[in-house]
Amino acid sequence: MSKISGFSKLTKIEKIDWLITHYLPSYSQAESIIKQYWHTDEALQKLHDEFTENTISNYYLPLGIAPNFKIDEKLYAIPMAIEESSVIAAASKAAKFWQDRGGFKTEVLGTTKVGHVHFTYEGDAQVLKSFFDAIKPQLISETASITKNMEKRGGGIKDITLKDKTKDLEHYYQLYCTFETVDAMGANFINSCLEQFGQTLEKEARQYAAFTAEEVYPEVVMCILSNYVPECLVRAEVSCPVAQLGATDEEAQEFVKKFSQAIRIAQIEPYRAVTHNKGIMNGIDAVVLATGNDFRAVEAGVHAYAAREESYSSLTKVSVDEGNFKFWIQVPLALGTIGGLTSLHPLVKMSLAMLDHPSAEQLMRITAVAGLAQNFAAVHSLVTSGIQKGHMKMHLMNILNQFEASDEERTEAVEYFKTHTVSHSEVLHLLEKLRSK
Amino acid sequence: MSKISGFSKLTKIEKIDWLITHYLPSYSQAESIIKQYWHTDEALQKLHDEFTENTISNYYLPLGIAPNFKIDEKLYAIPMAIEESSVIAAASKAAKFWQDRGGFKTEVLGTTKVGHVHFTYEGDAQVLKSFFDAIKPQLISETASITKNMEKRGGGIKDITLKDKTKDLEHYYQLYCTFETVDAMGANFINSCLEQFGQTLEKEARQYAAFTAEEVYPEVVMCILSNYVPECLVRAEVSCPVAQLGATDEEAQEFVKKFSQAIRIAQIEPYRAVTHNKGIMNGIDAVVLATGNDFRAVEAGVHAYAAREESYSSLTKVSVDEGNFKFWIQVPLALGTIGGLTSLHPLVKMSLAMLDHPSAEQLMRITAVAGLAQNFAAVHSLVTSGIQKGHMKMHLMNILNQFEASDEERTEAVEYFKTHTVSHSEVLHLLEKLRSK
Repeated sequence: MSKISGFSKLTKIEKIDWLITHYLPSYSQAESIIKQYWHTDEALQKLHDEFTENTISNYYLPLGIAPNFKIDEKLYAIPMAIEESSVIAAASKAAKFWQDRGGFKTEVLGTTKVGHVHFTYEGDAQVLKSFFDAIKPQLISETASITKNMEKRGGGIKDITLKDKTKDLEHYYQLYCTFETVDAMGANFINSCLEQFGQTLEKEARQYAAFTAEEVYPEVVMCILSNYVPECLVRAEVSCPVAQLGATDEEAQEFVKKFSQAIRIAQIEPYRAVTHNKGIMNGIDAVVLATGNDFRAVEAGVHAYAAREESYSSLTKVSVDEGNFKFWIQVPLALGTIGGLTSLHPLVKMSLAMLDHPSAEQLMRITAVAGLAQNFAAVHSLVTSGIQKGHMKMHLMNILNQFEASDEERTEAVEYFKTHTVSHSEVLHLLEKLRSK
Repeated sequence: MSKISGFSKLTKIEKIDWLITHYLPSYSQAESIIKQYWHTDEALQKLHDEFTENTISNYYLPLGIAPNFKIDEKLYAIPMAIEESSVIAAASKAAKFWQDRGGFKTEVLGTTKVGHVHFTYEGDAQVLKSFFDAIKPQLISETASITKNMEKRGGGIKDITLKDKTKDLEHYYQLYCTFETVDAMGANFINSCLEQFGQTLEKEARQYAAFTAEEVYPEVVMCILSNYVPECLVRAEVSCPVAQLGATDEEAQEFVKKFSQAIRIAQIEPYRAVTHNKGIMNGIDAVVLATGNDFRAVEAGVHAYAAREESYSSLTKVSVDEGNFKFWIQVPLALGTIGGLTSLHPLVKMSLAMLDHPSAEQLMRITAVAGLAQNFAAVHSLVTSGIQKGHMKMHLMNILNQFEASDEERTEAVEYFKTHTVSHSEVLHLLEKLRSK
């Protein structure tokens, strides 16, 4: 009944009609809700529709800004696209706090990206090695038409090495390939190079005497970039005298003690590390989204990096040396400021302009800072007032919106919930009481 | 100069004016771009503005649908919010493929959520244990006002245990707390309970004779839920006779061989596993976003789960037994279908209606299926035509949009790029040629 063939070929209106008929027959507002989010400018709407397939509407994420970020002596207002309350407020708060304490310092530790031709081969490993050495120049030269423009911009293929992985999996080898993609995230470039490597590998193998003699050839399984980019790495740091971290010396000492404990707990307890890093990603993803980058790619690379040692651990670290507090993050971020959505989505273009048209390296710095700031604010709240105070205030506002509370009702509710725990039913209860007066 | 105090208190218009004056002075369209994304319905816009702080506009993510998902014998059209091309197309393709081969089968393996009171204590561990046993009933009873409604819905606190973590970190202990939050994601509920536990713990400690005698008290560092939820777990599976996986028996065998190799590579090679799982998250996050859940929470929990054994590994597995192909995913997903954005964002409400108002468990099933489908489609492409073919077609369309290509130019470009590699400059070159004719 609700099976359908050729769905992708229907017009947008036909898709919506089908959807409503089969899945939303009793949801009378469905059509108006879907359409009320359409942009009135048809050409602009068409642009957004074509970012992906079967688009029926625009999912709104709030785009906000966090000002007062002093990064390497320059001031930024950072664009953040995120639906979670408190994140932008926390980022802004941390930015302001560190603005008066020297700001954020950053360093790009590497920009190398990685991809593989994964293949199997059942013959002699030495023969394969000789073959690889023989065809390596050709692997490079046959990608010339793909690499030409990237090379003009200062990037290209960095190296290709043969990796014998047969100890991990029978007959399994890799071409392990490294790339510099400059200001592009580079996924299309890397994958195009890799697929060409795979083709060259299989083609040349067919003509390699040692293979033909034995009739054993390498067989490509797949060619694909990796989102694990431990060498595309950026570091961001804040530091200041401990005394500057509290109104009194005692308060500062107490804060640093608790803050440091919280960071150390996140280093040794994976249950905590996951949420600790989740908070960092609140900041990072918000910038990644606003600048048209791919947050799934960044998330995967970051969390795998957090798990690179024995157990999953915190991305941030803290030290206190001779009365100096230092707090830093080291995080892999493969970002682009050209290509992809960056030249298509008007709000992405505007977000990049707001950041003074950053290079990919500059965007790595800014994004890492957003993550560090977020973490500082979150851990600060956790070890002082607790996380719920701010959250519950936002939560209250959202519930009040849902019930279309008047300004007067809002005032009463804020007062009431200073001494009561916010919950959906408690808010409803209060509103009912106020409204029946 | 671009330092600012009290930014959050400015009106939206004032924020935008400040932003443009200080960061976008030469970007003449900035104001019109920001405002053109505002919704014309002021009340609706206000609702979206208040999801977070310092909101200046709405960031559009395409909301699309993937039909033909047969899950546990029921047909679904799945809402997906995602900016990346090919993801919805791939999901739809995999859905259709498996619809004719028995569909997806799912199982919820657990729904337990976790949180901790992290604290330090420098005294005798046995004394602490006795104290904990003594106050455990009180820990529970003092959360009564918080848990009342959750208990009515069948959830609440499951257990609290004391964990001695002093081997990992000096003086470090936890209250390890488990929760059932039914259809709510439960973050606010869990954090509210935990903060109350922390208060009860410190309050009671002050009156516990064995502590007061030594003047050694437990000190709370922080109270916070964990996004690592290995016991909030769902499994989704597809299976069919190998013969159904190709037009001929030989083709089917070859496909299964390559597909299985690709999955095994993702099991033993972290570089591949990261991207493999990234593709899974393309599907999962798109549903998470469309249904108003928190993708950072889900991402963190999923990737940490992928890293739970010696090294970071694939979330999907494959087996071939007696001519039967089986492919499955096991993934932790803490999702909610009530509370948070689910009752606020009109498109989230509509997305949940489209899925027939699922319980949190049903949404876990549907979301896991979206991830599995995505992975099947991606690996299918990788081991057959390669990933670039589909990607480059979408890439071409996006570039053509950017240059506002006419329908005629599109047709010419599609034809031309059947035999040429798509790149920004190549497309521009072709368009220039066509336009100068």
